[in-house]
Amino acid sequence: MRRIKVLKPVLVSNQQRAKENRQAFDRLNSLVINIIASPGAGKTSLIKGIIEKLKNKYRILVIEGDIRGQIDSEMISKLGVDVIQINTVTECHLDAFMAAQALPKIKKKYDLILVENVGNLVCPAEFEIGEDYKLAMLSCPEGDDKPMKYPLLFHLAKVVVINKCDLLPYLDFNIVEAKKAVRKENPRAIIFEVSSKTGAGFEEICRHLEKELNAKKKKTAG
Amino acid sequence: MRRIKVLKPVLVSNQQRAKENRQAFDRLNSLVINIIASPGAGKTSLIKGIIEKLKNKYRILVIEGDIRGQIDSEMISKLGVDVIQINTVTECHLDAFMAAQALPKIKKKYDLILVENVGNLVCPAEFEIGEDYKLAMLSCPEGDDKPMKYPLLFHLAKVVVINKCDLLPYLDFNIVEAKKAVRKENPRAIIFEVSSKTGAGFEEICRHLEKELNAKKKKTAG
Repeated sequence: MRRIKVLKPVLVSNQQRAKENRQAFDRLNSLVINIIASPGAGKTSLIKGIIEKLKNKYRILVIEGDIRGQIDSEMISKLGVDVIQINTVTECHLDAFMAAQALPKIKKKYDLILVENVGNLVCPAEFEIGEDYKLAMLSCPEGDDKPMKYPLLFHLAKVVVINKCDLLPYLDFNIVEAKKAVRKENPRAIIFEVSSKTGAGFEEICRHLEKELNAKKKKTAG
Repeated sequence: MRRIKVLKPVLVSNQQRAKENRQAFDRLNSLVINIIASPGAGKTSLIKGIIEKLKNKYRILVIEGDIRGQIDSEMISKLGVDVIQINTVTECHLDAFMAAQALPKIKKKYDLILVENVGNLVCPAEFEIGEDYKLAMLSCPEGDDKPMKYPLLFHLAKVVVINKCDLLPYLDFNIVEAKKAVRKENPRAIIFEVSSKTGAGFEEICRHLEKELNAKKKKTAG
């Protein structure tokens, strides 16, 4: 269709800009995670949970992507970490050029940069922003068929977080099937089962992040 | 950004095509509803619920929009109504040109055409397909802030369905705030509270649809 005609060159120029962002993030020695999920799956809650557990040990920056508004940024700011807001206005995803707009605003080094993408399972997966990796989030109320229906994201995500597991008793969500569906797209995905409401599973995610942060530090030192 | 440069002409040509679709749907005397929601909000369950209540009184066609696969189409087919599948491959929404591909496959007259768009709160709202109106669905687990965060859809939707109300006791979802947020974008929105699990609220939706279908029939007869 009409957009497909322009999609290829758009993605090529996006990839070039993503590489440049990547170099800038590397100069900051930052681990950059592009967090992608449906609206309301729990991206902001995940970020808040990580901040609470890791903010005293690591320097954290959050980049908030929203169509409009900044309520999540304001909420996260209150936790005592820096936040940069990007409003996409009409766009349903962040791209490398939007992420590049955040770069001049980064005035110091951060160990961890958490990017909250626009709530959408489709386009955010197509546009690299210069991240180390994508983290896909799936919340149980959405259904265990979503990895099959939105394959690209689950194919590309290094980490998959299944959220709202506290609701499992009230849902027809088969977590074994959900994990199978993720693994079918991506056999090496690292999967966490969490509840942002009860905090279950956040220890495990943060332990994993600490390993990655320490590995990054060692690599930079060596 | 790059896509914005082409977005305006794309939307203009889409609107022209949507008008032509509209004329075709009018020749069929069909009421066409474009159903838009997040992944897993309950679009397919809504469609199934409507079919079960109305299929013996009205001729119903479902047009299923998915990135890939046809599991929803197969499920709906079993209910004894006709289904046309559109796979968008990389696109995060249906547009008027994709909907036009369904037109030659419509071999008879239908009273009601239910179009299930791709699960996404952003782009499906931007692209008219020739529908009578958009129906936006919001499921309680997504949070009561979604109409504020994804304003265009709720601004444009004539009908807003709040689904999964059976989960309200387990969620921090304020239904009064959610309705306020919808009304702020769209004071005239017709709002239904339903549970696709228990069937609550489906009577009301179907009663509303019957009124619309009867009004359409009268208008055509007159």
